[in-house]
Amino acid sequence: MADRVLVPWVENRENAPEGVVCDVYDGTGEPGVDLAEVAFYVVPYGRGPRLDLIARMPNLRAVQLLTAGYETALAVLPDGVELANGRGLHDASTAEHALALILAAQRELPRWSLDQTAHRWEPHYTRSLADCRVLIVGYGSIGAALERRLVPNECEVVRLARRARPDEGVHGIEDLHALLPEADVVVLTAPHTPQTEGLIGAAELALMADDALVVNVGRGPLLDTAALLAEKGRVRAALDVTDPEPLPADHPLWEAPNVYITPHVGGGAAAFYPRARRFVDEQLRRWAAGEPLANVVRPGAAGRG
Amino acid sequence: MADRVLVPWVENRENAPEGVVCDVYDGTGEPGVDLAEVAFYVVPYGRGPRLDLIARMPNLRAVQLLTAGYETALAVLPDGVELANGRGLHDASTAEHALALILAAQRELPRWSLDQTAHRWEPHYTRSLADCRVLIVGYGSIGAALERRLVPNECEVVRLARRARPDEGVHGIEDLHALLPEADVVVLTAPHTPQTEGLIGAAELALMADDALVVNVGRGPLLDTAALLAEKGRVRAALDVTDPEPLPADHPLWEAPNVYITPHVGGGAAAFYPRARRFVDEQLRRWAAGEPLANVVRPGAAGRG
Ligand SMILES: NC(=O)c1ccc[n+]([C@@H]2O[C@H](COP(=O)([O-])OP(=O)(O)OC[C@H]3O[C@@H](n4cnc5c(N)ncnc54)[C@H](OP(=O)(O)O)[C@@H]3O)[C@@H](O)[C@H]2O)c1
Ligand SMILES: NC(=O)c1ccc[n+]([C@@H]2O[C@H](COP(=O)([O-])OP(=O)(O)OC[C@H]3O[C@@H](n4cnc5c(N)ncnc54)[C@H](OP(=O)(O)O)[C@@H]3O)[C@@H](O)[C@H]2O)c1
Repeated sequence: MADRVLVPWVENRENAPEGVVCDVYDGTGEPGVDLAEVAFYVVPYGRGPRLDLIARMPNLRAVQLLTAGYETALAVLPDGVELANGRGLHDASTAEHALALILAAQRELPRWSLDQTAHRWEPHYTRSLADCRVLIVGYGSIGAALERRLVPNECEVVRLARRARPDEGVHGIEDLHALLPEADVVVLTAPHTPQTEGLIGAAELALMADDALVVNVGRGPLLDTAALLAEKGRVRAALDVTDPEPLPADHPLWEAPNVYITPHVGGGAAAFYPRARRFVDEQLRRWAAGEPLANVVRPGAAGRG
Repeated sequence: MADRVLVPWVENRENAPEGVVCDVYDGTGEPGVDLAEVAFYVVPYGRGPRLDLIARMPNLRAVQLLTAGYETALAVLPDGVELANGRGLHDASTAEHALALILAAQRELPRWSLDQTAHRWEPHYTRSLADCRVLIVGYGSIGAALERRLVPNECEVVRLARRARPDEGVHGIEDLHALLPEADVVVLTAPHTPQTEGLIGAAELALMADDALVVNVGRGPLLDTAALLAEKGRVRAALDVTDPEPLPADHPLWEAPNVYITPHVGGGAAAFYPRARRFVDEQLRRWAAGEPLANVVRPGAAGRG
């Protein structure tokens, strides 16, 4: 019986190392292969990933996700099956969107859009990103990708994560309150956990300077929506994620002054696909060579390959 | 008689080298000094700079502008007076705005603004800046500042100027037609001259790929407005400068599909001021030390100082 690999893209099959039997399954309909032969399943990307197929793969040894989150997959994974996630695959698209939101807020792009709709040519001076101090709250994979994009914009970056890493100039979360008053821009790139829920609430917003900007590309609940509304525009905001999400049509956040919203489109951009395809190619190479997979979040039974 | 220097900002007087007599004139009303004593005039920044005062400064030896354009000043400058311009002072603000326009177009920020107005949460996949090939037409001071900001966005930059500089990887204008079909984004940062007028016309737009983006932060006439309108959205555009300018309320460009407009606000942002102040400080230091001024666009009579 063949050790089949199910990959999401034709390119992965074309690039597959010799000896690896690849079938393409893009997530629509039923895979056209005997699921009993699948040893490595790369779950196709999209809303509602087909994790249900895992139960029909008795010879499965490894599952590759293309998302960073893996809780749902873990719940349905049989013992002994290795799980790897897609950490890093959304870095470029999400960091790029965070940069777009910061620049849009500083350079007032939403205003110019509305002025265009009204056929209004009314220039005025705006803020810049240059010379700003940008505090990255959740300096991980996306935070570092954002920092690389910020540095040539002549601004200063301050790094903050859960635990301080003094050798890398990363502050711990215990420094948050001390750092907030000095930040022109605060970017949230931490994950949603019990510890990060409401990380930026009324007390934290109150510590921010007048007209400072908070950007959320992490998860909606990191920022307390009621507390932001209570600021009445004193602190500005650019939000790719909101709480609740999707934002209902009658929610006051839509009309809140100095709040700019995009509908959770940070990770979902063209940059994702080539990075994900290359990553799957690399994982297939490791698989074929008997090397450890990258991004393993739960080890499998020993003796793969 | 004192050799007075007229500076636009209090900070310049505070930072002035010993022995330099500085007066502050911010461009409003009449300067509170005897104009006959002014040897060095830093023309205050703003719409309608007070170049008329030059005629009342019989002992003037040098004029410093805070703009890059200097034709108007040259026309009123007496023989023997040195002229320096503000080349470079708008690099950060203009390059930052060009980056904002590129990101806005790729990530569809104008659409999200309109969706916010309509309380509409309708995410979809967008383009990215990552992996794009960006052709900079007019690779000078602003073009280089833009390139620095583009590189960490994981895109490829192609440089083009008037004359090829092969050692720096800069194409000459003769390569324009060959390079246009391969560009995802074409940024215009050349000055307005007889040679650059209509630089991007019907023939050039026709060479661009479907859905490619042209960004203009140079001057409106570089891009042929009628030719862009005739594209009916096949080529996308993000324009900080237009032809005509200001754009009249009834102009069809306002409603053209896939055209995004900001009202010539590229250079006019907070980043300008600290850079301009620091530059004036430096020029005063050179002036006091008898060193040649920077950014001289017309030499004065020999033997200054
Ligand atoms: N908008 C979108 O479309 C989009 C797309 C992709 C991802 N995301 C979100 O972005 C998040 C970050 O992704 P990533 O790949 O950068 O993750 P990552 O590499 O794991 O980085 C997460 C960072 O958050 C920090 N962190 C965790 N708990 C914290 C706390 N209580 N206080 C302060 N910092 C804390 C971590 O600190 P330590 O290093 O000290 O552990 C780490 O630096 C994801 O979890 C996801 O929610 C959004
Ligand atoms: N949107 C705004 O608010 C704003 C703000 C500031 C400036 N600007 C505009 O930006 C322009 C550029 O500023 P800069 O400081 O970067 O000027 P710069 O340093 O003089 O650079 C201009 C570049 O344009 C190139 N160029 C000139 N004629 C050309 C032609 N016929 N074809 C192709 N390239 C040509 C030059 O090539 P060579 O090196 O071969 O001569 C040079 O590389 C200014 O002239 C101004 O119009 C706009």
